[in-house]
Order: sequence, then structure tokens, then C-alpha cells
Amino acid sequence: MKNRFSQRVEKIQVSAIKQMPLLARKFSNTISLGQGLPSLATPKYIRDEVIKFLENDNNIGKYSLQPGMPKLKKAVADNLSKIAGRGINFDKEIFISVGAMEALATAISSVVERGDEVILFDPGYSSHIEQVLFAEGKPIFVGLDEEKNWQIDFDELEKSINEKTKAIIICNPSNPTGKVFSYDELKTIVRLATENDLFVIADETYNFLVYDDFKFFSLASFSELKDNLILCGSFSKEFAMTGWRVGYMFAPAEVISQALKVHDAFVICAPTISQYAALVALTKQPASDEVDIKEILRKRRDLICERLDKLTDLFSYQKPRGAYYVLAKYEKTSLNSWNFAVKLLEETGVITVPGCAFGPLGENHIRMSFGGTEEEIDEAFNRIAKWNKNLNN
Amino acid sequence: MKNRFSQRVEKIQVSAIKQMPLLARKFSNTISLGQGLPSLATPKYIRDEVIKFLENDNNIGKYSLQPGMPKLKKAVADNLSKIAGRGINFDKEIFISVGAMEALATAISSVVERGDEVILFDPGYSSHIEQVLFAEGKPIFVGLDEEKNWQIDFDELEKSINEKTKAIIICNPSNPTGKVFSYDELKTIVRLATENDLFVIADETYNFLVYDDFKFFSLASFSELKDNLILCGSFSKEFAMTGWRVGYMFAPAEVISQALKVHDAFVICAPTISQYAALVALTKQPASDEVDIKEILRKRRDLICERLDKLTDLFSYQKPRGAYYVLAKYEKTSLNSWNFAVKLLEETGVITVPGCAFGPLGENHIRMSFGGTEEEIDEAFNRIAKWNKNLNN
Repeated sequence: MKNRFSQRVEKIQVSAIKQMPLLARKFSNTISLGQGLPSLATPKYIRDEVIKFLENDNNIGKYSLQPGMPKLKKAVADNLSKIAGRGINFDKEIFISVGAMEALATAISSVVERGDEVILFDPGYSSHIEQVLFAEGKPIFVGLDEEKNWQIDFDELEKSINEKTKAIIICNPSNPTGKVFSYDELKTIVRLATENDLFVIADETYNFLVYDDFKFFSLASFSELKDNLILCGSFSKEFAMTGWRVGYMFAPAEVISQALKVHDAFVICAPTISQYAALVALTKQPASDEVDIKEILRKRRDLICERLDKLTDLFSYQKPRGAYYVLAKYEKTSLNSWNFAVKLLEETGVITVPGCAFGPLGENHIRMSFGGTEEEIDEAFNRIAKWNKNLNN
Repeated sequence: MKNRFSQRVEKIQVSAIKQMPLLARKFSNTISLGQGLPSLATPKYIRDEVIKFLENDNNIGKYSLQPGMPKLKKAVADNLSKIAGRGINFDKEIFISVGAMEALATAISSVVERGDEVILFDPGYSSHIEQVLFAEGKPIFVGLDEEKNWQIDFDELEKSINEKTKAIIICNPSNPTGKVFSYDELKTIVRLATENDLFVIADETYNFLVYDDFKFFSLASFSELKDNLILCGSFSKEFAMTGWRVGYMFAPAEVISQALKVHDAFVICAPTISQYAALVALTKQPASDEVDIKEILRKRRDLICERLDKLTDLFSYQKPRGAYYVLAKYEKTSLNSWNFAVKLLEETGVITVPGCAFGPLGENHIRMSFGGTEEEIDEAFNRIAKWNKNLNN
């Protein structure tokens, strides 16, 4: 065979987010600021209900309908209706996916033709880049201004749109920067998308997680975007359900009917047991002693910022306003971010993610997740602080 | 937008296997010979162990490593080692997928370039056709001779190979025909693949399910195919775990490392809870009072054949030797298979799958699953028999 592999697969890579934990297996006594994996277990009230289903409901082990369980689709639609301010047809405008990731990959491969241009904010979520390349689209990076807390440059955004542009992808709140897009930024994106008839593919996985007085606006609330919005959501982060692999797509009926074809060819349906768990998450109240994920993460954010503030000779950073990541810029060394992250891992056992994974402007940064416990964050920073001292000598 | 959707998605469709149950929701009192969904619940010993994990193991709700849980990969590799007669590196030659389906879609999109030809047996499993079209490959159908119990025409197979051919896809035992490929057939496929340096992408989901004295040979047992075999397996059918969405790919290390990139971009990892369940399935013994899935399905096959034998004026068929499907040819009407299946549904409430979904030679057939209970099979055939009498009048 001349070429054993397709161009689409040759062009992409496994996200550095997952390469780092694999690499880390070679080392002992590691501590992770790496993958977006909160320390928290799936809440007990969800697990308890799933146990009841496992005991009593024989359908829990069987395929669901291919687009997902109607009850779950309806619960998702009911929530989105409140945001959109209109009725949503759960049968035509929603499908249940294997995490937000499958909804995103499915959306992008459904609308992006080979050679189409797709606008991505830089830095942005690494997998969106891979998904565009898999669809043989061309990523067009629009830089965010770090000094202005990762603000969009509207001129650059407007200039990046041409007749080849097919879609704008946005992750809000943003992984890896913790940026929360302002109303004005979103309004501009919506205006440009509708004026130029572009799809907006929105990853709102962290929609519940905004700190201080910042406000999250879902793109579902912009009614003028209705025909062009593909919104991908997840249960992974809000309900500590990363491993269950369940999420959804909300989009115009004609998009859903295309996307379902890809969904069918790749996964048939989302895991049924996970759909049961997601339905519990959306419809049952947690016990009063259940932990408050958002409050726990706010404390961890404050802690990581406090620790970073003591390392100003090594790192500068923008305080995260949402999600649970900080994208810290490092000084002192000309190492590229991959080598920096690997050196840090080798010499301290601390796992981070190299910023290069998140677009050109991610270079010279590392992403740190504060999903881990306060003890883990402290231990990681004790090691980094000691390491930094050695760098100085 | 001139073209809202990509060519790859425009070309494919949701398999008729899943369209029929969706269509059937409009009718009351339906009975299904449709989707490959056995009536059986996931065995109690598997559910019981999963309940223990849900109670005691906080990692059950979290991402696994991206290629799957090492313990599960090792258990899969150990099983395959016995078949392959060699040691298998579980870390490099295996990954855990969202059912065999994701392994297949990932394999095909990793090796098939736009314009590549891919050989499919006709009739064959419908989703393989969609997966090839999604990768913008060209399906080349090689007909099976129905009269000779779906035997391969070796001349036709050999003639179908040219310099554009990239892979041969085989589902063995076969969905939808119940054919079990003979040793000679497999040996010929292996010879042609190695001589022409083609990938063989094997779907061995039904490997445990062969009736009478027929023998199943895994393509993993042909050592000369080692560098070109991509084998996709599943826990769905053997352990009544269709809804858990867990399977695996076994392939050369260089294929796995490419395929993992697609896996990462589409699903991140297989559901962790399902990986726990699969590990139980592979490593624990069922309780002695657990049902024998194979024996139950053999009885159902005998029943469906008995009922078909009483309808020789309406149907002819080849007795299934494996899996749990029969592809019956209908007489008396010039309706195409889609219209036939819809008419049958509308007039009797019996769900089947139109043969056209399985390739050109599937036309004028319907696929009947005998995964349902004996009562369901009897009820379906009571209705069909009555309907047939009316056709005669």
C-alpha cells in the first residue's frame, strides 16, 4: 500500500490533554493538574437511582432508540426552552450524544466540507481543532487578547470571514482560558454569523460554572441565531459524570436529521445506563447534604490563583472567570510548551497540558486544571515552587 | 449558504434497522422482528458487580484513560492471544471502543481515502456501507450466492480487486444472512488481502453464536494476515449488553495509534461504567442458574424456521447458521423491500427490516431478527400468516 492511512487521520493527533496522562504512567508519584477530571465522584443520589434501575429495569442494558430516550430528550428540551424563550420540539431539535464531544464531532463532520474554513478562537479547546481537521476543513484562528482577559479582536474576527467560511466554533465558558464571553462579544458573533449565514457551533459544557459576578449567556438565548446554532451540551462537568459519556445536541431539525446519520454510523446510540443517569441528574433534586460542585471549584480557583500569585517570576496569568482551568504564561525559559510540560513532569511529577495544543497563541503557556482537591493543588504547587527555586540557581 | 451540509453526510443515511423502530412508534400494538436487540436482560452477575462498583468505587463516574482501562484491554488481549496463538501487546494492539460500531467507523475513516474502493459482501451489514460512504470511499459489492447458502463467488471477488482497492469488510457470522464463512472462504480472503496488501476489517460481533455443527474461524487465527487485520469485537450480543456501548479494536500497533486519534476526537473514551461491566463479563463466571444465551437463541432459530416453513408460498430462506437473523425472500408481490416492510408494519404491526439496506442483493428480502421471545416470534408469525391468507384472496 502506498498510503496506509487516510489524509484526514494523518492530519490529526490525540489531544495533548490525553497524551500527558499516558506519558505520566512512566513516572511514579505524579500529581495531576492535567485532564479536566474533577476529583468529585458522581453524586450519590444519581448513583443510588441508577442502582435501582439496575435491580429492576431490564431495559437498562439494551439499546435506546437511536436518537436517545424520549424522556431525556424532553427534559433537555424543557431546560433549553426556558433559555430560548420558545417551545423546543424535543423529537426534532435534540439528540442525545456520547458526551458533548460526539455532538461536536458529528456537527463538524456534518457541515464542514473539505476545504471549508472554520473560525476558532485562539487559544481555544484543542479537540475542536482536531475535529475540523478530521472533516478536512481549514482552521482559521482568531486571536484573543490575553492582556484584556482574552478579549475578542472584533476587527480580526470580521476580516477572517470570507466566502469559504462555514462556521464559527466557540467554547463558552472557555476551556483552556476560563474566559467567559461577554454579551457584546456574543452579540457580535451572532450578528456576523447571521449576516454571513454561518453556523455557530457552541460548546457550552461549562455553562453552569461562572465565578464572582460574571454572567454566562447561552447562545440559545439569541433568537436571531435559531436557524444557524448548533449547541452541544454535556452532563459531564455539572454532575461529575465525565466517565458516563452522555451529552446532547440542540440544533435546527434539518441539522439534527443529518447529524443523526453520523451518530448512527459511529455509535448507534448513547449508553442507555448513562441516559438513565442523566435523566436523574436533570429531574431529581440532590440530597441536602450533597456537595456544591460550584462552591468547591470556586475555592479551588481562589487557591490556585493564590499559589500562582506567589510565583510571579515564573508565571503570569489571567484569573479564570469560568470553567476550571487557568492558562498560565511561563517566563524564564525558551522551551516550547510541550518541552516545558514534559520537563515539569519529569522533574516534579506534576502533570499539566502544553499550551500549544490550544492554538498558536497557546504556545509559551501551560494549562492547569483546578479540578483536583485543594491538597493536590497545594502539593503540586509546593513541588513547582521548589523546582522554580532550582531554576533560579 | 449554498451547501449547508457536507457531501459525506449527504451521501449516508440512518440505517433502516433504526428507521423502522422510529417509524413503528406511530402504531400501537407492534411486535418486533426488527432491531438486533435480544429480549434478554444483561445477566444478573454483571449487574450485581456493577452495583458494587457504584457503591464503592468513585472512579466509576470518571473518564478512563483514553484508549480504555488497562485491565480490560489486557483481558481482551488474553482472550485473543489464545485465538491468534501468539502474545498480544494489550497496550499497543488493543483499544476499547463505544461498541464494535465505533471501532468499525474509526477503522474505516482511518484507512479509507476519498475515492478508495472497499469490498463489501452483498448482502452485508448495512452500517458498513454507510461507514464507507462517510469516509468518501466507494463500496464495491461482491455478491453472495443465495442458493448455495450465501457462498462467495471467488472469481467475482478476485476480479473486484484493483489498484484502488483499500480494504475488504467482512461480518462473520453475518448480519443479516446468518451465514458463517467457511475456512476455505476465509483462507481465500486472507490470500487475496495479503497478495494485494489490503486491509481486512472484520466485524466478529456474533463470534460466539454458531449453530449445529458449523464452526466459526476468527480471522485472528490467520497469522499471515497479522499486519493487515483490523478486528472489531463487541460485548453487546454475547453478554446481552447492547445498551452499554462497549467493544474493542484489535489491530497492528500503527493502526491503533491512528485510530485512537479518531476515537479521541469523537468520544474521548468508552463509558467507564460499561468498561467495568465488560471486565466482569470477561473475568467472572456466571451463576449456575444464569441463562444460556446460545441455547435460547438456537431454540428461537428453530422456531422461526418452523414458522417460515409453513409460509413457503410467501417466503423462501436459507437457514441461519449463526447470529440471530434470517434474510427471507418474499414472493407474490412486486413491492420493493422498503414498501413491503412498511406495508407489513402498517397492516400487521410486525416490525422487520427491508433488505435493500444490506446491499443490492438484499432487495426483495426482509430481515427478521429472532432475538425476541418465542411468544413474540409466534405472535408475529400468527399475524403474518393471517395477513398472507388475505393476500391470497
